[in-house]
Amino acid sequence: MDRAPMISVIGAGDAPAAVCAVARELGREIAARGAVLINGGLGGVMRAAAEGAREAGGHTIGIIPGYDRGSANQFAEFVIATGMGEARNAIIVASSDAVIALAGEGGTLAESGFAKKFGRPIVAIDAWPEIDGIHRAENPAAAVELALSLASKSGRSRNA
Amino acid sequence: MDRAPMISVIGAGDAPAAVCAVARELGREIAARGAVLINGGLGGVMRAAAEGAREAGGHTIGIIPGYDRGSANQFAEFVIATGMGEARNAIIVASSDAVIALAGEGGTLAESGFAKKFGRPIVAIDAWPEIDGIHRAENPAAAVELALSLASKSGRSRNA
Amino acid sequence: MDRAPMISVIGAGDAPAAVCAVARELGREIAARGAVLINGGLGGVMRAAAEGAREAGGHTIGIIPGYDRGSANQFAEFVIATGMGEARNAIIVASSDAVIALAGEGGTLAESGFAKKFGRPIVAIDAWPEIDGIHRAENPAAAVELALSLASKSGRSRNA
Amino acid sequence: MDRAPMISVIGAGDAPAAVCAVARELGREIAARGAVLINGGLGGVMRAAAEGAREAGGHTIGIIPGYDRGSANQFAEFVIATGMGEARNAIIVASSDAVIALAGEGGTLAESGFAKKFGRPIVAIDAWPEIDGIHRAENPAAAVELALSLASKSGRSRNA
Repeated sequence: MDRAPMISVIGAGDAPAAVCAVARELGREIAARGAVLINGGLGGVMRAAAEGAREAGGHTIGIIPGYDRGSANQFAEFVIATGMGEARNAIIVASSDAVIALAGEGGTLAESGFAKKFGRPIVAIDAWPEIDGIHRAENPAAAVELALSLASKSGRSRNA
Repeated sequence: MDRAPMISVIGAGDAPAAVCAVARELGREIAARGAVLINGGLGGVMRAAAEGAREAGGHTIGIIPGYDRGSANQFAEFVIATGMGEARNAIIVASSDAVIALAGEGGTLAESGFAKKFGRPIVAIDAWPEIDGIHRAENPAAAVELALSLASKSGRSRNA
Repeated sequence: MDRAPMISVIGAGDAPAAVCAVARELGREIAARGAVLINGGLGGVMRAAAEGAREAGGHTIGIIPGYDRGSANQFAEFVIATGMGEARNAIIVASSDAVIALAGEGGTLAESGFAKKFGRPIVAIDAWPEIDGIHRAENPAAAVELALSLASKSGRSRNA
Repeated sequence: MDRAPMISVIGAGDAPAAVCAVARELGREIAARGAVLINGGLGGVMRAAAEGAREAGGHTIGIIPGYDRGSANQFAEFVIATGMGEARNAIIVASSDAVIALAGEGGTLAESGFAKKFGRPIVAIDAWPEIDGIHRAENPAAAVELALSLASKSGRSRNA
């Protein structure tokens, strides 16, 4: 089986509307290209990206911090209840073929750190100009295209 | 969105052929009823159950212990790389609406413990006669039917 | 450096006074033999065992489920805030040279499963007659002596 | 019981000698002020900091990624075997009253992210000029003094 690539979209759980609109568009682009969206399963950027992916007919996975699956947003199709709190960031990144980052706080910084550690390509839109080794894209479509291209090059191990 | 129920099938990674045949039939029954199979994503019972579910057109999630997604069996449609080792058992159980247990070793005992702790119903086929509070079924179809019925009664929190 | 052995005492967080008295005596015996007590850091058996160990001048480590160190009992000398919920059981067991089990619920069953999985010897006092491979002792002193003896035989890897 | 503060020193597992010398001095300063050193328990900065702390008579805790306690450095007095891989960074930070960061790679970035997320003060020596909200110190003694002062102010919850 050739697995579909998984792309995570990371960003704040209480992002402003403009950032959420970008996240939703990212979700749509990810699904339109046949990739799976994976993220933290809660609100803000997480919810918006999942909504976009579902609108475009894609699969979505929400990796939530607690054990209560009712806390996941309604667009998380498959909910993984980790009970791992913030450490779930490592799971999200390790399960992704590429990471797309929007503006965020500490959680996003941790995810960027894991992306470096695990060798996952990371693409930013208007975020993290101060961190080395992050790729840049100007809009959602370009970000998803770049993420999938980088994932493909980086010798993905997700296929048996 | 009304999420599909998730059922885990737990058992040994190096189970004999007869046990794997039961696992495969469980996977088929789970998929046939529209539920999602979730388990540890490796070999033996995990692989057989996923194979059955995919044959019947269902979705499968493999929660693997390491970071190498290439270690997952080919029937794990969505691979979650936890890097959490044996502690991933807690994630599998917490993400399930019900657990079906086949014969296994320590890992399975741990999963049964988590099922009790998280209040997830657990159904056994030829396993764990010595542990209280486990439901019994005589064959795969009966086990899946019972698991879904118990999951439905236990006030599932997976839907928003 | 030759590290002191670590022994975990597992049991319910809301145990009756008689069980807590046994736990406290276990803590004293562990400390008296120069071993370190490690457990889940909360109430009931966890608190009583830590109290006994501190009374006898020993070190105690509490591996708590959340991020709030204020939730640990006052006898946990070193508090490790896992944020890992119930999955912390795997950490407690993997960090122990031997496990002593008192009566408990699901969490304890999970810990017994991990002890089997990780090859840690497990000694029970009045608990788990139904599970194979558990050693028995009739009182706290005998349990600690047996636990240390089994730990020593099982080729501990804790020393560099 | 008034618990001793815990300070983590984070940095690369294969740091050059000059960085390790700073780490060792940090360990000494931490122990000299009665604080406990906690870190990832392996080589490089982790080993050097633990060596310094033990030399000065302090306690050291190593939170290792795997289940093999033999992989810990010899100066880790208490070894916690998490089996959690890189996600153990969240445990280290959450268990610390303050974090001191030396130059490092992705793992260190992740730890900085968790420090922000958990509200733990973070002090850097020659590291992370590009990240907001990190305090600066010019030498080990000043870094430890600042870390303990910030920890004290931030309403530590480690005491019952």
